[in-house]
Amino acid sequence: MIKVAVIQTNPIFGRIEKNLNNIKKLFLNSADLVVLPELCTTGYQFKNMDEIEKYSEDFTNSFSVDFLTFLAQENNTIIVAGIAEKSNGKYYNSAVVISPNGLLKTYRKINLFYRENIYFSSGKNEPLVVDLGAYKIGVMICFDWIFPEVARSLAKNGADIITHPANLVLPFCQDAMLTRSIENRVFTATANRIGNEARDGIDDLKFTGKSQITSHKGERLTSASLDSEEVIIANIDPRKARDKNINKFNKLL
Amino acid sequence: MIKVAVIQTNPIFGRIEKNLNNIKKLFLNSADLVVLPELCTTGYQFKNMDEIEKYSEDFTNSFSVDFLTFLAQENNTIIVAGIAEKSNGKYYNSAVVISPNGLLKTYRKINLFYRENIYFSSGKNEPLVVDLGAYKIGVMICFDWIFPEVARSLAKNGADIITHPANLVLPFCQDAMLTRSIENRVFTATANRIGNEARDGIDDLKFTGKSQITSHKGERLTSASLDSEEVIIANIDPRKARDKNINKFNKLL
Repeated sequence: MIKVAVIQTNPIFGRIEKNLNNIKKLFLNSADLVVLPELCTTGYQFKNMDEIEKYSEDFTNSFSVDFLTFLAQENNTIIVAGIAEKSNGKYYNSAVVISPNGLLKTYRKINLFYRENIYFSSGKNEPLVVDLGAYKIGVMICFDWIFPEVARSLAKNGADIITHPANLVLPFCQDAMLTRSIENRVFTATANRIGNEARDGIDDLKFTGKSQITSHKGERLTSASLDSEEVIIANIDPRKARDKNINKFNKLL
Repeated sequence: MIKVAVIQTNPIFGRIEKNLNNIKKLFLNSADLVVLPELCTTGYQFKNMDEIEKYSEDFTNSFSVDFLTFLAQENNTIIVAGIAEKSNGKYYNSAVVISPNGLLKTYRKINLFYRENIYFSSGKNEPLVVDLGAYKIGVMICFDWIFPEVARSLAKNGADIITHPANLVLPFCQDAMLTRSIENRVFTATANRIGNEARDGIDDLKFTGKSQITSHKGERLTSASLDSEEVIIANIDPRKARDKNINKFNKLL
């Protein structure tokens, strides 16, 4: 069994150090795997390329990656977190997989939503699966949920648990993730943010919380509130995601 | 706008004429499109190949197809109905699309569930889309729902409405069809059956009703009961399924 924790936060735009300290405050020290929201260090609504340049980080020399690595060491855990990345003059809406030994892998969001397309480049690699030894995690970010091909690819490549940093503004994803679990027989851990992000010259966005962890059978194991920072946890057996037989005649994949 | 009706029935095994007369009794005479359950003329639980041979029909000379054609003429409507088919020594769990002029097209279920694999051959063609002039319907049958590739194929091939004859015994599909609607921006019409089917030597099956029609936005427009024969209807504008743009940056397909 592994203990999965999802931390639902309310980042303040541009306050990377404050947001990371807030994550540290909420951090669950007994979890094997901790999932944080999309863009959890910077906030979501960038106004221009100057802000993207200012707040995104090169992961070869990143305050946020170092901070989360320290957290991973201190708590002996794996962390999946959404961070704005800069690399070779391009910017990505990325998620890092961090172990106590540092950055393991990075997933660059493929399906950028709406205004993200103005600032970020789309990831060109296929959805990321990381083998952690006892289990494998898949990584997808927020709007990737609406394309069944993304979760399918993760399951086909062996993911037992789909980790899913998100900044959701619509109410559909949480239920759809039950379908993603059923159709692929995978656990999912969606870390959403809460709060209202108001920035001059851009429409306010209200994020919908309700972070959740689903079972390989499409059950909602635990669910967070609509509007509070909180930690939800579930103890799961990732091996249960590996038998894709529904019965002796039918296989899911 | 078109009026879609879904008829939820409780077929009696092997009583083809009685089941068709029951459908006639329930028939809604003002609908443009009427969707009936899977295997709605025969019932579901075949015990052996003799029964399959006895109750399945060659659609070039079929009592059920003729009966439904007459119903389609009488009511000036399109009917989608699940019927056991025999063709060239093989048997299929099929769905017919019938107009007042007769049989238009047949879909042979691709993803056979559990014991269906003993008696039926799997359909080898891709999921069926039929152009009805003012709108296009897709056809899939029951367990096809769990494979996102099926609904995806129907949407890619232009289906505005996925018609979905079913004999569901598990409670997951109805919610998953909301996801199928959202991820493909298509209407769906699931015609499930009700009742308990007890046959000697085979486990009893209880069917879960709750037939439904969903919108292109993933709303449940109407839903039937768990355990009554009934007709549900929705007036829809199939053209709303055609714009696959979510916003100026994002497209679903």
